[in-house]
Amino acid sequence: MEKKQIQPPQATIRRLSVYLRCLNGFDDEGITVVSSQELADRLDLNPAQVRKDLAYFGEFGKRGVGYSIAKLRDHLIKILGLERKRMVGIVGAGGRLGKALASYRGFEKRNFKVVALFDKDPHVIGQVVGGTGAIRHFSEIPKAVKELSIEILILTVPVEAVDEIFELAQLSGVKAVLNFAPSKLISTDEVMVHNVDLAMELESLSYHLSLGEKLVPPDAQ
Amino acid sequence: MEKKQIQPPQATIRRLSVYLRCLNGFDDEGITVVSSQELADRLDLNPAQVRKDLAYFGEFGKRGVGYSIAKLRDHLIKILGLERKRMVGIVGAGGRLGKALASYRGFEKRNFKVVALFDKDPHVIGQVVGGTGAIRHFSEIPKAVKELSIEILILTVPVEAVDEIFELAQLSGVKAVLNFAPSKLISTDEVMVHNVDLAMELESLSYHLSLGEKLVPPDAQ
Repeated sequence: MEKKQIQPPQATIRRLSVYLRCLNGFDDEGITVVSSQELADRLDLNPAQVRKDLAYFGEFGKRGVGYSIAKLRDHLIKILGLERKRMVGIVGAGGRLGKALASYRGFEKRNFKVVALFDKDPHVIGQVVGGTGAIRHFSEIPKAVKELSIEILILTVPVEAVDEIFELAQLSGVKAVLNFAPSKLISTDEVMVHNVDLAMELESLSYHLSLGEKLVPPDAQ
Repeated sequence: MEKKQIQPPQATIRRLSVYLRCLNGFDDEGITVVSSQELADRLDLNPAQVRKDLAYFGEFGKRGVGYSIAKLRDHLIKILGLERKRMVGIVGAGGRLGKALASYRGFEKRNFKVVALFDKDPHVIGQVVGGTGAIRHFSEIPKAVKELSIEILILTVPVEAVDEIFELAQLSGVKAVLNFAPSKLISTDEVMVHNVDLAMELESLSYHLSLGEKLVPPDAQ
């Protein structure tokens, strides 16, 4: 089978986070063992998909018995590297989205700690946002990444500034970038990039809205 | 083949938005025809994946010639239902994330217009945010949905309030919900839900960080 040597697709990695939260929900309800069918039902997924996703990482669960919630949860935490805190910096922290993310409570609960804020605008340098302290000039990124062991930079900068900031991020030695700017960045060998596009979330909803409105012309070219 | 009758997976719908933006990029560069290989290269995807995604919606492109950028772009816009403006309301608009989204420039550029803001907190009702006008009490959601033809509600409310707001959203006749609260909502027959989880984006980056740090135990149970 050699499943362990195959790199799981990005979509599988994303679903691991979903499984993890779902297991926490079962645990809260006092449930200790769960089947792939039950996990799938709760998440509106196909049970075969659940089993396939988990099989990338070894044999969990017992046939006919299901998964031990405590064990599966511990393993998902290890697989996702969530057993230790990861330090995060936000670039563009003077903007509204940057400020919102700087005080987003969901990060710290999941073991991500925002430890530094950066911006380019001299008017916001020195402003204190949330509990993270004052916004620094973005030229301090490389120094702060080293001193504070920052592993992930979140970019909420304007499109025009993205390339410059990404170059600086690469030089800084940071290993991952989460980009909210509406301009797609490509991962390099050193820096893993995820691009978040808030409008794209609306576009796929729009697809579903339009399904009810009209038939798409079946043939185009 | 009967491809046209198969409902494309959610991941395909998401990639259509990505293709669309990529085509705009090629167009800006004066390119008029593009191959699936060129599209795939630009997007760090497999060309077979690109062809498969597009094949769900009919036969675009000519073998050995590629896709006409103008035609493919028009079709993607139609498939995604982006040829007309969709009205959007934000619930939880008094919070930082709500405010950030209310003034996020990326939405209107993509034909989504934020036309109403709601909150529960009496201290923020009446506050004017961005160009959208004053925040209303959330009990006005059903009325506003009808009067302003709102099709999508964006939820940026605290976890504790999500269920109550979602019930109200369902009663209001809105057709789609984009949920930013860290509590997963499930689509109903009437309301399509997408859950955005900002911490989840960090978790999949964490997976890639941890790959370099240790080996995942191959066997768990």
